[in-house]
Amino acid sequence: MKRETIERVRKFVTDRDWQQFHTPANMAKSISIEANELLECFQWDEENYDLEHVKEELADVMVYCLDMLQCLNLDADEIINSKMDKNEAKYPVEKARGSATKYDKL
Amino acid sequence: MKRETIERVRKFVTDRDWQQFHTPANMAKSISIEANELLECFQWDEENYDLEHVKEELADVMVYCLDMLQCLNLDADEIINSKMDKNEAKYPVEKARGSATKYDKL
Amino acid sequence: MKRETIERVRKFVTDRDWQQFHTPANMAKSISIEANELLECFQWDEENYDLEHVKEELADVMVYCLDMLQCLNLDADEIINSKMDKNEAKYPVEKARGSATKYDKL
Amino acid sequence: MKRETIERVRKFVTDRDWQQFHTPANMAKSISIEANELLECFQWDEENYDLEHVKEELADVMVYCLDMLQCLNLDADEIINSKMDKNEAKYPVEKARGSATKYDKL
Repeated sequence: MKRETIERVRKFVTDRDWQQFHTPANMAKSISIEANELLECFQWDEENYDLEHVKEELADVMVYCLDMLQCLNLDADEIINSKMDKNEAKYPVEKARGSATKYDKL
Repeated sequence: MKRETIERVRKFVTDRDWQQFHTPANMAKSISIEANELLECFQWDEENYDLEHVKEELADVMVYCLDMLQCLNLDADEIINSKMDKNEAKYPVEKARGSATKYDKL
Repeated sequence: MKRETIERVRKFVTDRDWQQFHTPANMAKSISIEANELLECFQWDEENYDLEHVKEELADVMVYCLDMLQCLNLDADEIINSKMDKNEAKYPVEKARGSATKYDKL
Repeated sequence: MKRETIERVRKFVTDRDWQQFHTPANMAKSISIEANELLECFQWDEENYDLEHVKEELADVMVYCLDMLQCLNLDADEIINSKMDKNEAKYPVEKARGSATKYDKL
């Protein structure tokens, strides 16, 4: 993701003085709310979805993720890489290949 | 977000042959599920949260967002900027400043 | 649903002095969190689910719905019937039969 | 909850031939989607909410819960009481009173 995109999302919030509403808890609610608008695209039919609508709702989720990183002063690469370290340990390639089994049952 | 991070997330999936499970609908469900693990960090107390836990759950949401972009062959910057065009039009600075009112009631 | 069941759920909360945590907003978060534990039963496979697990998670959602009714002093029959009045008007049988189309596109 | 209410919700679905869409997985998605419309009532302000809107969204969650019971041929009292047996064992009154701590940390 480009620095300009991240900066545009940040500026959108500060230009509107919305940092006051952007508490971590409100961001968590907002991510869940948008995630469910995304899920609604697949509510009754998982194959035939409206791609333009999906793109908008996925973007909404990601924008709130960026907002949450911003309000907690976190770095996306750092938290994702730190989580990937754990995921790679929990799901060794040889055990997890081709299986959707949760790590605690592998 | 760095290209290496995105590539690491992609490789994690392909190394385990998990593309078969990564349908758009399953990704939408997964994003909502992880978003609610994030929300659980704020279930009873919105002020005193476990930051390390929050970082992990937010990373999980973002990883599934990257997976969904991947399985739909979408570009994060493109869909976010396209949505920000709409958000900026829906929430003009002069009207929206300091207000959490939804655009259709502004 | 039996009066004893509703009363048991109410007593569970008051015996533990948990009314203080049962704000409407916390109940809404809790319902979403449990709804997603239910959704997780169908995350990767929608056909082969663990019925015992599904029953527990669905019960969790319903218990928090009862808690929310309780903390808002609402009656289940009343709010459901009032919503069904609207649903029946929005989805006339002759138009909606056999179709999963949303009312605003019928 | 009255038998007539449950029967009205059941008839609403069968009159419209919607049982075909009411798979357990679709019901789980629907419950989460409606739970998040309920959560949206508290997105930016947890104190000042629109009670009429809250009632409608809570009713929507409960209607889908009834639909899910119906499509799995389950009884509300049975699954709730069976879950309450576990909750009462996990949260003994003397340990849990006045505390929002999760059972595995009590």
